Amino acid sequence: MPIRYNFEKKINELHKDLIKMGTLIEQSLDDAITALKKQDVSLAKKVISKDDEIDYMELRIEKECLLLIATQQPIAADLRDIASVLKIITDLERIGDHCTDISEYTIRLADEKYIKPLIHIPQMAEEVKKMIKDTIDSCINKDLELAKSVCKRDDIIDNYFDKIVNELMFLMIDNSSVVKQCTDFLFIVKYLERMGDHATNIAEWIIFTVTGEHI
Amino acid sequence: MPIRYNFEKKINELHKDLIKMGTLIEQSLDDAITALKKQDVSLAKKVISKDDEIDYMELRIEKECLLLIATQQPIAADLRDIASVLKIITDLERIGDHCTDISEYTIRLADEKYIKPLIHIPQMAEEVKKMIKDTIDSCINKDLELAKSVCKRDDIIDNYFDKIVNELMFLMIDNSSVVKQCTDFLFIVKYLERMGDHATNIAEWIIFTVTGEHI
Repeated sequence: MPIRYNFEKKINELHKDLIKMGTLIEQSLDDAITALKKQDVSLAKKVISKDDEIDYMELRIEKECLLLIATQQPIAADLRDIASVLKIITDLERIGDHCTDISEYTIRLADEKYIKPLIHIPQMAEEVKKMIKDTIDSCINKDLELAKSVCKRDDIIDNYFDKIVNELMFLMIDNSSVVKQCTDFLFIVKYLERMGDHATNIAEWIIFTVTGEHI
Repeated sequence: MPIRYNFEKKINELHKDLIKMGTLIEQSLDDAITALKKQDVSLAKKVISKDDEIDYMELRIEKECLLLIATQQPIAADLRDIASVLKIITDLERIGDHCTDISEYTIRLADEKYIKPLIHIPQMAEEVKKMIKDTIDSCINKDLELAKSVCKRDDIIDNYFDKIVNELMFLMIDNSSVVKQCTDFLFIVKYLERMGDHATNIAEWIIFTVTGEHI
């Protein structure tokens, strides 16, 4: 049927845009963590300036979704698919915001020598990045098992969070002169933990799209 | 026109549900802060248990939105109105989540004597609550000026955030034995700051619904 064909073509275009937005965000997270690690202010500024592009992508995809609903009047699974994209881009955009938030701390911390080299924070960010990539993949391929595995991996992020927060608390107890820097790192780690939550939200939306059931 | 009448009736019902969800969340925030202030574990537990009700409200409103799009095929401003409700309930639900997050810290802190009585945190929460109430009101009444005032008030929340974080840092520098408690309060204040961001997001969505333009 040509109508169905047309609809599927539009959905494919929507998915391609979602991949593009996901790739932009993975890159932002990569850059944000590299900038933080290397105290690279110009890279941090690049992350902040790229946030507009991510916001613009969100608006564009959202417009496409609304246009698709209005012109194609999808029902059941097709409507769920588009509604999920609307929700997913909100979470992706928030992850992008948190890359900016982290980069603002990188700029604040630029002139200070770090108390110790960053090891666990980049490892945590790597896990978050994998979660984001897998959520996008599971969305495109309607891969229920992959989406479920993302939800489970939120525990890994929470463990990193607890571990790093504990480490920072010990550093502050040990030496009051590092309180300000450690406080900044507490918030950076909190942003990473929130990103894990957003990836989990996205995965839950994908499960909803495929099964019609919220978990 | 009876079709138009039917649509407007459905939109009114949707708005009523949105008010209900907003009222639930205002109550949760009130309870979460009272519980934190009075170290009232049973009230904190009540906040956590009520989160399911908020999640359920989100799902129900979302279903209504999808059904409305599928059956009434709205376009232009009507479609934007429903799309905004879909986005707004996501932010409202996150505010509800943060009430739970704060209550979990209340339970953790229940057996500890607070370093000092809480003054600024309840004041900050009161401002956030007003923002939430005003966003719901501006959504129902399509009150552009009220929505704009909510966006501006995010600065008040950010000022409270900076002020309280500074205060906590000084307490930690002054006395290393309070580091753990102050760290918990840092995250509590961060949750309140995020709530302000969510209220601002909602207000921005309302401005979009009314004007068709994102700010």
